[in-house]
Amino acid sequence: MTRTIFFKNQPRIVGTSSVAGPKECAGSIKEYIQTKLENDDYGEKSFEKAESRMLYTAIKNSIINAKRKEDEIDAIVAGDLLNQITSSTFATRNFSVAYLGVYNACATFTEALTVGAMLVDGKYMNNVVCATSSHFASAERQYRYPLELGCTRPPQSQWTVTGAGSCVLSANGTGPKITCATIGKIVDYGVTDANNMGAAMAPAAADTILRHFKDTGLSPSDYDLIASGDLGALGSRILKDLVWEKGVNLEKRHVDCGELVYNLIESEFQGGSGAGCSSLVFSSYLYTKMKEKKIKRLLLVATGALLSSTSSQQGESIPGIAHAVSMEV
Amino acid sequence: MTRTIFFKNQPRIVGTSSVAGPKECAGSIKEYIQTKLENDDYGEKSFEKAESRMLYTAIKNSIINAKRKEDEIDAIVAGDLLNQITSSTFATRNFSVAYLGVYNACATFTEALTVGAMLVDGKYMNNVVCATSSHFASAERQYRYPLELGCTRPPQSQWTVTGAGSCVLSANGTGPKITCATIGKIVDYGVTDANNMGAAMAPAAADTILRHFKDTGLSPSDYDLIASGDLGALGSRILKDLVWEKGVNLEKRHVDCGELVYNLIESEFQGGSGAGCSSLVFSSYLYTKMKEKKIKRLLLVATGALLSSTSSQQGESIPGIAHAVSMEV
Repeated sequence: MTRTIFFKNQPRIVGTSSVAGPKECAGSIKEYIQTKLENDDYGEKSFEKAESRMLYTAIKNSIINAKRKEDEIDAIVAGDLLNQITSSTFATRNFSVAYLGVYNACATFTEALTVGAMLVDGKYMNNVVCATSSHFASAERQYRYPLELGCTRPPQSQWTVTGAGSCVLSANGTGPKITCATIGKIVDYGVTDANNMGAAMAPAAADTILRHFKDTGLSPSDYDLIASGDLGALGSRILKDLVWEKGVNLEKRHVDCGELVYNLIESEFQGGSGAGCSSLVFSSYLYTKMKEKKIKRLLLVATGALLSSTSSQQGESIPGIAHAVSMEV
Repeated sequence: MTRTIFFKNQPRIVGTSSVAGPKECAGSIKEYIQTKLENDDYGEKSFEKAESRMLYTAIKNSIINAKRKEDEIDAIVAGDLLNQITSSTFATRNFSVAYLGVYNACATFTEALTVGAMLVDGKYMNNVVCATSSHFASAERQYRYPLELGCTRPPQSQWTVTGAGSCVLSANGTGPKITCATIGKIVDYGVTDANNMGAAMAPAAADTILRHFKDTGLSPSDYDLIASGDLGALGSRILKDLVWEKGVNLEKRHVDCGELVYNLIESEFQGGSGAGCSSLVFSSYLYTKMKEKKIKRLLLVATGALLSSTSSQQGESIPGIAHAVSMEV
């Protein structure tokens, strides 16, 4: 049973772009974000439309940064958290390009990278965009409560990132290479608290990371950084405990994009989350550091909590999933 | 700009399975359906849980029919219409297998086949399951009105298929070969009537079919059958008009899975729709006919309407998409 797929032709990430809201642009990665929004609504009439526009901007600028023309792009692989991934639909509608919609909650970014890398590596296509987004206000309204209600947040909760990130993968050009990907399986430890995503996702992250090391023969010290997607502070602690029990020490190599994106003041509690969390942090900070060769080998492990408000209302637990993508310069 | 990808190693569809509700099992393809439900709720407490169980059953039986063991399956590529594709999540949770969730509304089945075919064709994996589902009652509740309201349906409406279909693609074995796929782009003619999906999707189907013929050099007469996913009677007429305007005559080769699935009595109006429509019809009737060599070359063009109830409420039009997968025995 294969979980890790190897890319013989090692597609390059030739350009990225990132868009983020005011809160994210005040955080620790602010100087790396390309498009900094002054308002969460991005001049649109709804937060859903704002999210879609953010994703559109990220895709458009990533194509420019990759020095590609729009008609050189063969496909867009995109996803987001909204019902029927409408942010991706309406962002992609503006491009006359093949479109594959993907959804694995906050693990969608590495899922998109995996599918995009196959499209390029298998010589099916030359230039493929992989992009995801999320928006705090559209996510709160959909998954929890409308902001207008003014509900308080429990301490284990995370803050959905208002952000979008986009990468252009290419068969030619310069940039970090994607060497392999370990596709996640669903792991469900029975967590039912929709405010505690970190705990729901950490077991899936542990499973994928352990499987990645088993399949590749690598160990944490082979990576400069192992970046989980959006486990937050609590989820990251659970991840490190779970893999430590299996004899793997992540302590020195691990960061979490959700912990990285804010300054971790009290109001964000455990840090950032959302399908835009890992794509924003990768497309801004991590990509820059890889281009500067400050990070030479990166394992990006976006993590997703596969719930819906209906499944929660019907008493279902929250299954987790995590996909790992290995990159190097 | 590539839209059509060619599979050099031509993955085989080595087994399928189908599950359908009582209404579908009274329709014109009834004798080809493997698991016939006596009740729409499939013994579950909610229609959402019933849909998930249908998809689970289809996946499980397709693996048995393909004469594979569960631990020989490398990945499941699945999707459905529910928010956050939870039918696929909870169906897939029961398998300890890599999972990629995909979403392009009712075009999800051929999207899954395209991604699955790449996984096998690129020699990344050996056995991949591609599956989708939909359920009339869960879809009505989510997209339109709860059944309990007893709303009347306008004549242009379609009936979401209660059904699931699953295929096992393999690098080895016997069965129809997947030769190429034309990935759809989003086409939006500005239709805003959420009851008229056929009209919203037909332009995308026309675009993909015309592009397929252009990219491959084939014409309708090269196929025994060109099966659109769920345009229904009205949408099919629009499709045939649109391609006829471009000098292509589909008349003699075209069927629509949505027209095929019911007996087209008045209460279903334009026929079936839903992510389970094309997967049910393909995994039962069409696959059997291909195995019997009554259909030797098939172009399956699942069609999707990329709306959500939020996007409709915010005044957005309904973008369409269609992915075409070419198969032969």
